[in-house]
Amino acid sequence: MPALANKLYFNYGGQGPLPDPSLAAIIQCWRQIQHLGPFSGEVWPLIERTTGPLRQRLARWFGVAAHRVAFTENVTSGCVLPLWGLPWQQGQELLLSDCEHPGVVAACRELARREGLGLAVLPVKDLRGATAELDAAMLERLDQVLTPRTRLVVLSHLLWNTGQVMPIAAVAERLRLQANQPWLLVDGAQSLGSLPLAEEGAANAAAAADIYACTGHKWCCGPEGLGAVALSERLLGEGQPTLIGWRSLSHEGSAGSGFHGDARRYEVATSCIPLMAGLNQSLQLLDAEGDGPRRLERIRAGSRQLWQGLRRLPGVRTLLELPPSAGLVSFSTAANPELVVRALGDQGIWLRSLEDPHCLRACTHLTTTEAEINQLLEALERLGGPN
Amino acid sequence: MPALANKLYFNYGGQGPLPDPSLAAIIQCWRQIQHLGPFSGEVWPLIERTTGPLRQRLARWFGVAAHRVAFTENVTSGCVLPLWGLPWQQGQELLLSDCEHPGVVAACRELARREGLGLAVLPVKDLRGATAELDAAMLERLDQVLTPRTRLVVLSHLLWNTGQVMPIAAVAERLRLQANQPWLLVDGAQSLGSLPLAEEGAANAAAAADIYACTGHKWCCGPEGLGAVALSERLLGEGQPTLIGWRSLSHEGSAGSGFHGDARRYEVATSCIPLMAGLNQSLQLLDAEGDGPRRLERIRAGSRQLWQGLRRLPGVRTLLELPPSAGLVSFSTAANPELVVRALGDQGIWLRSLEDPHCLRACTHLTTTEAEINQLLEALERLGGPN
Repeated sequence: MPALANKLYFNYGGQGPLPDPSLAAIIQCWRQIQHLGPFSGEVWPLIERTTGPLRQRLARWFGVAAHRVAFTENVTSGCVLPLWGLPWQQGQELLLSDCEHPGVVAACRELARREGLGLAVLPVKDLRGATAELDAAMLERLDQVLTPRTRLVVLSHLLWNTGQVMPIAAVAERLRLQANQPWLLVDGAQSLGSLPLAEEGAANAAAAADIYACTGHKWCCGPEGLGAVALSERLLGEGQPTLIGWRSLSHEGSAGSGFHGDARRYEVATSCIPLMAGLNQSLQLLDAEGDGPRRLERIRAGSRQLWQGLRRLPGVRTLLELPPSAGLVSFSTAANPELVVRALGDQGIWLRSLEDPHCLRACTHLTTTEAEINQLLEALERLGGPN
Repeated sequence: MPALANKLYFNYGGQGPLPDPSLAAIIQCWRQIQHLGPFSGEVWPLIERTTGPLRQRLARWFGVAAHRVAFTENVTSGCVLPLWGLPWQQGQELLLSDCEHPGVVAACRELARREGLGLAVLPVKDLRGATAELDAAMLERLDQVLTPRTRLVVLSHLLWNTGQVMPIAAVAERLRLQANQPWLLVDGAQSLGSLPLAEEGAANAAAAADIYACTGHKWCCGPEGLGAVALSERLLGEGQPTLIGWRSLSHEGSAGSGFHGDARRYEVATSCIPLMAGLNQSLQLLDAEGDGPRRLERIRAGSRQLWQGLRRLPGVRTLLELPPSAGLVSFSTAANPELVVRALGDQGIWLRSLEDPHCLRACTHLTTTEAEINQLLEALERLGGPN
């Protein structure tokens, strides 16, 4: 991973580094397409060999059947395209957690404006404790804000700011008990590649949501510009596609065609096929590192080390009160977060600041070493020092 | 262009070949991003240096100010995203030409279903004559089908099936005379990179339309998965974005943010930046071949040679009655089009079949040689022969 060779990198939650074998797979796919002819009878089998296995692999990761997986350009399109196609009625309410990404929030606001829907807030930002207690508290909060008008709940699986994991499967179960069966949209931007989604015996978040939208370019270390969304059978039955192109149609050559019955109805038109070869290679590399729970254990070993080290530094406060359940570690120091980002960047150490809560965030992944975490801690200590 | 080294390629209207320097630019951009850090303070200037000049260059090609240009993943998203954000009223009518691409037609159908709009047809498929006469006939047709309820006209600049050029600027002028000022959506899938859009003195189609959607992967010979749309000032003022992500927001970090005032409000979220380096390189290579009118002249020299040759073959009928105005040459032979495509493909000659009209289509671009056209004609003659 050339991106890790010349710096200390803690921004996996922003964008993961692209491994050399993945870039090589991308380039090779492009060369093959050119060799066969970009629009020729001979290229379609290659495209099928590139998209098919990736869809299968993502389905395995999600723990859903492959016909429930659609490719998207990014998390946003995975969240919003199915959303715009749900049947809405004026007066219904969208319930959004207070830790959702600004893009998704803005899209829900616009949807509410157009369809005459209400907006309500599910507060989760302050939930930063032990998993079991937190899950109970979270479900209690949900019960308090759900109304008979709630038609959609928007919740991230792994909160991008506090780093707390949300009990998605339990939330889904709760929603199914509601008379009006609200839809569940899960922003999985931080979870695919970091949290196990489809392990045997565990509650499966991706399978439980109606819309579970992810990207390949963060924790999966795939190329930017390619994501995927898992959709529920109910959504496939009741939702209509929005951004419609030839890939949405069951018979692409005909204007009279109906939509694909499966998740492909949410795919649009020409995308960059070589990116799929790259993502598949990145997922393969992750698969080779062990199954999801084993990988998460390693990610957590790093985030725990960082979290513990941060708590020993004077003036530093971690957002979470217990070691993180995944690889996101948010914290504040006495200094302005943006100044800290810049000062560390000058030393070749990359983390990011967040606006709300206004703080710093460092991520640890499988590739993060103990020594790198120590170097980050030392650099932070120097910044906070008397000089 | 490796794609042209081992075959006779006539599918530029499907996907253009990617020149080696463009693939090299893509790879270099990826390596630079990794070197600087994919999410680091040092990568933003590189991203700005990659997106900024491409937006400027596309604006020059379109003949509009750069703030009117948005990047899209493909033609469909360029057509449909702004469309979904226009203010509609039940009972208004969408007027679509009978030569629009199935994807756009299906999107308009779905929009009509959701918003209670009517659909009407503007017949242009049979207009296949001399430019001046055709333009007059086309405007007459338009007058006949426009009603006070018409709120949008959808028309391709260069018809993907017959290869006829539509008088977009004249249509736009006609629509401005209507009391209800219908919007004009132009599918420019076949025009960017083949027709000059912004030459001095000429009527500017891209500037005249409200939505002029293009892709980089056909006649521009850029990578697949990147397009652009030029939007009118009126649309920027009255339209709302649909697929909303962090790139749509003027202040991306804040959920309370408004949308960008310029065309970026129609951009969504993370895209593949290296593709932009590739498209910019491809456009630069085209720029080096001469200005738009000069390039079109060369494209037409090839399509004329092909058109004339086809008309000399027994049993072959060209769709156009005069030499093509651009590089698309549609024709039928005595044999089934799909069988012809396969038979020629077996010989390493690639063209495509169309469903409506059911026929064959071969494209000539700057890279098409006289000898290649002769080889295609000979192969067609052999297929039609007595054996």
